[in-house]
This record gives sequence, C-alpha cells and structure tokens, in this order.
Amino acid sequence: MPDLSHYGEEAVVARLTTLLEAGPGILTGPGDDCAVVEGGARGEAELLKTDCLVCNVHFLPEDAPGKVGWKAIARTLSDFAAMGGWPRHLLVTLAVPPSCEMRWAEQLYRGMNKCARAYDCSIVGGETSSVPAGAPVMISVAGTGTARRSQVILRSGGRPGDLLFVTGRLGGSLRGSHLTFTPRLLEANWLVRNFTLHAMMDLSDGLARDLPRLAAASGCGVLLEKDSLPRSRGVTIEQALCDGEDYELLFAVSARTAKRLVPEWRGQFPDLPLSLIGSLTADQQPGLSGGWDHFGG
Amino acid sequence: MPDLSHYGEEAVVARLTTLLEAGPGILTGPGDDCAVVEGGARGEAELLKTDCLVCNVHFLPEDAPGKVGWKAIARTLSDFAAMGGWPRHLLVTLAVPPSCEMRWAEQLYRGMNKCARAYDCSIVGGETSSVPAGAPVMISVAGTGTARRSQVILRSGGRPGDLLFVTGRLGGSLRGSHLTFTPRLLEANWLVRNFTLHAMMDLSDGLARDLPRLAAASGCGVLLEKDSLPRSRGVTIEQALCDGEDYELLFAVSARTAKRLVPEWRGQFPDLPLSLIGSLTADQQPGLSGGWDHFGG
Repeated sequence: MPDLSHYGEEAVVARLTTLLEAGPGILTGPGDDCAVVEGGARGEAELLKTDCLVCNVHFLPEDAPGKVGWKAIARTLSDFAAMGGWPRHLLVTLAVPPSCEMRWAEQLYRGMNKCARAYDCSIVGGETSSVPAGAPVMISVAGTGTARRSQVILRSGGRPGDLLFVTGRLGGSLRGSHLTFTPRLLEANWLVRNFTLHAMMDLSDGLARDLPRLAAASGCGVLLEKDSLPRSRGVTIEQALCDGEDYELLFAVSARTAKRLVPEWRGQFPDLPLSLIGSLTADQQPGLSGGWDHFGG
Repeated sequence: MPDLSHYGEEAVVARLTTLLEAGPGILTGPGDDCAVVEGGARGEAELLKTDCLVCNVHFLPEDAPGKVGWKAIARTLSDFAAMGGWPRHLLVTLAVPPSCEMRWAEQLYRGMNKCARAYDCSIVGGETSSVPAGAPVMISVAGTGTARRSQVILRSGGRPGDLLFVTGRLGGSLRGSHLTFTPRLLEANWLVRNFTLHAMMDLSDGLARDLPRLAAASGCGVLLEKDSLPRSRGVTIEQALCDGEDYELLFAVSARTAKRLVPEWRGQFPDLPLSLIGSLTADQQPGLSGGWDHFGG
C-alpha cells in the first residue's frame, strides 16, 4: 500500500475517519471545522477542535515566538468562528527538542495567552514533551467551545442559488498576516445571531481548496467570479485563490438574506470588506485547482 | 537564557504555566492529570486533557501501529481515571511525514478506535498534518470527560498520615506493557463511588518521579516502603521505581478508609493487586531520585 503522499490530504482524512465508529452524543463528527456534541446548557451544543503548528510547515524558526503563539491559538479560534460558536477552554501540547530555548518557549506562551485572553477564553492545561534532537517544534492546540444549537453552521447546508461571501482580503499571507491574523469570532457571531446562514467555514488552505470542500459538503457546484475576489495589495488572482492561511470566513446565504445582510454588515464592520464572490449551483462541477495539500497528492 | 534541558521538565512546566492567566469557569487549572472546568449536568464537572506520543520517545518505528494507537488513547484515558472521571469525546492530531504508509496510519486508527470503544467513548474528529521528511511521527490526543464534582480527586488532597496504595505491578513496561496496558477507569470509578479518596494520580513517569509530585501537591512528605513495591516479574526495586509508563493508579486514603477498602477491593478486583506502599508524612523531605524527565535536567 502506498504512502500518504500518494493519496493527498483529502483522501487520507476520508480513509482514516471512516475507521472511526460513531458514538452517542455526537451531533457532527469528523469533516467540519469543529466536531459538535451534546453538552452545555439547554439549547446549546459543545464544539470540539484540535489543530497543530509544525515548524518549517506552519512557521519558520526565525519567526517571532510571540507571533507563533498568537497563530497557534488564533487558528483554533478561527474554527470556532467558522461554526458560529465561541471558544471556552484550550489545551496546549508543546513538543520541542531539548535544545529549545526557555526564552523562546516563554514568548510563545505569552503570545498564546494574549490571543486567548483577547477572545475571552483560557488555556487551562496541556503538556510538554521532548522530541528527538533535530526534530521540528510542534504545537498542538485543542479547544472546547459552545454554540446555540440552532445557530451551529455546518459546511453542508448550502443550497443551489445561495450567494457566496468572503470577509477581508485574500492572498499574500506569507508576508506576515498568517502569524497575526484576526480570528473572525466577532463577525461570525454577529452573522449567526442576526441572519440565517446556510453554510460557513474558515479559509485555511486557500479558497481554491476550501470552496470546493464547502460545495461538495453541500452537494452543490460553484460559480466563482474570480474578478470579484477581494485581494490583498499586490496579489494576483491566482495568489488570492491558492496562497492559503487567510483565515477569513466563507459563507453561503440565500439571495434574500444577502440583500439585508450586505448593508447591515457595512454599518457593523465598516473597516472589513465583505465580498460577493459567486454562488452555489445545482450542477456539481470539477473543483478549482491549487491551494495547500498537506500530503502533496 | 539556557535551553529547556538545563531546567528539567518540572521547572519548564512550572515556568510556562505561570504565564497563563486564569479565566472564569476553571475549577482546576494546569498541574493535575486533567483540567477541571464548570460544565455538564448539575453536580458534574467537565474534565479536559491532552497528551501526545512521539516516535522514538514513546514508541518505536517497528512497534505494531495498532498497539501504538491503543497506547495513544489509553494514555489519555488513564488521566481521566486518575481524576475519578470518565472520558467522553476525543480528538486526534496525527502529524506524519509524507512517507508514512497508509497501512500504518489505518492500523494506528483501528487501534485508537478499539481502545476508545472499549471504554465507551468516541473519537469525534481531529487533524492530519505533514511534518518535514525525516521528522518523527507525532500523535496528539485531546479529550473531554465528566466527573461528579464531589468525586473529582486531585493530587493535592493528601494529608499527613494517609496511606498510599498502588494498583497492579510496577516496572518492566518496555517489555511490552507500555503499549497494551489497561487504563484503570473501572477501578478508579469504583474507588471514587465507594470511598473517600484524598489524592490520586496515574503513574506515567515512574513512582520515583510521580509520588513526589503527589506529595508536593499535597504539601506532605513521603515514607516509602520500598520492599512493599509490587513488582513485575524479574524487575528490581530500582526498575519498579524508575522505569515509568506503568499507568497504574497511585492514591492516598485515611487509615480508616483503607481498613474497609482493602478487603472490598479483593472482592471486586480479585486479579489486580492493590498494594500498600507507604504513607504521607507531615515533614517534607527530599524527593526520590530517578524516573523519566522529558528534558533530562
């Protein structure tokens, strides 16, 4: 049987998750931005998420450790935003070679704590482990959160004719924003409280990979208006599609909802663009190409 | 500032966790087997835990992947046992080089699922990430669980005069049991339902390291009767103290509780030894030496 690079990330995840048996209390299992399980107060669901950063994959040895810490937490928080929820408690696993400097680790933790506190959640524990000398630093963050059950937004609820929106600007994240981005918790929570969203996710691997995921989960095709993509300064359409690590929201709403949403968004978040980038269609069509594949398949 | 190997694991964890700010809803933060937070049904608390395995640290490339998967889950479950709780939902992060074989990953997942189902909990999601070629496989498992608030057992509740017990036999785990051990969930839950335990933890780094942690958390010293240590076949006292990865329970109870507990244990778990190994004292004394230090300080 070949190695994982032969399959590509999508197929690896699909094969492995089919080996897991569902159990009681699971409302949404593997495949969305967070798992959704029963729990919490009446009318609420618990959200569960884990995410990791690997040195030389998600950050570089020379990156400021405080920013790496911010990113480690913000990536996870972005997934809670994508579900329409809010994070609550976080656990951090730090796997480092013994040569890791204490100052680096401390600044990493300061950055993590800063991001957690900025969004009113707490790091409540974790683990440190050694890795063999020469192995990369790895930071794994797991979190719990909550959402109103009626406001949990999955990737799979999109419908043909829905309009597709993205927040912010896409592309060029490697110039720095991949370490300092704002998880769109405030925006997502405002959206789910005030509008009926059909589907939502955060953009971590690039629109070219992530949009087909949302469309496939919804059983729809996509009509993408590439010229409408909100681009970071100096970035080509191709880069906006494929760079990845934007951590902006992608969501689908009915045309009727969109009509009310767009002007209200402008009033609520005047400094953050909201762009109509296309629509979901009834005919499934081949996915867009590009974006980030963890196993290079 | 020196690197982490200069400090040793205990000091690393202590320094890093002081950088974290406490938030609302946290009943027990970093430093115990699980974090304890508000949540769940009335009278219950939510337990949170994360734990990781690194290739060439916690398992070897030639180990059977199904057993590695069992261990990855069982280690985390053992921490829920140590709190007097029960696991509920688990998240798995698998970080592997692209050369990892699909068969290996599948057998790993089968082993993880087998262990989760054996203890009535579920893997509800996770993440796969690539690591650079040559870097070790890393498996991080995060979990949520529940416990009766009145039955959560911390490391810190021990009192001078308490008697110390361990389950099972210690030492020699590298001969195989470190991959196939039984997390003591049934035993711990029986204990907390039927007896007043003052302190409990699971033995992951060896009694020589773990017992002083429990004693220190309880503000006590230790009188250890080394000749009373329950040893695996062919194992020296030194090995029973220092090998680590026993994943047995260590707990402290009053002498009065012990008198009732010991005969009832024999009736309930006739095949699993329960051994009195010493007591907590009022005078703090120097820790035992040996055991496993992740940063070799």
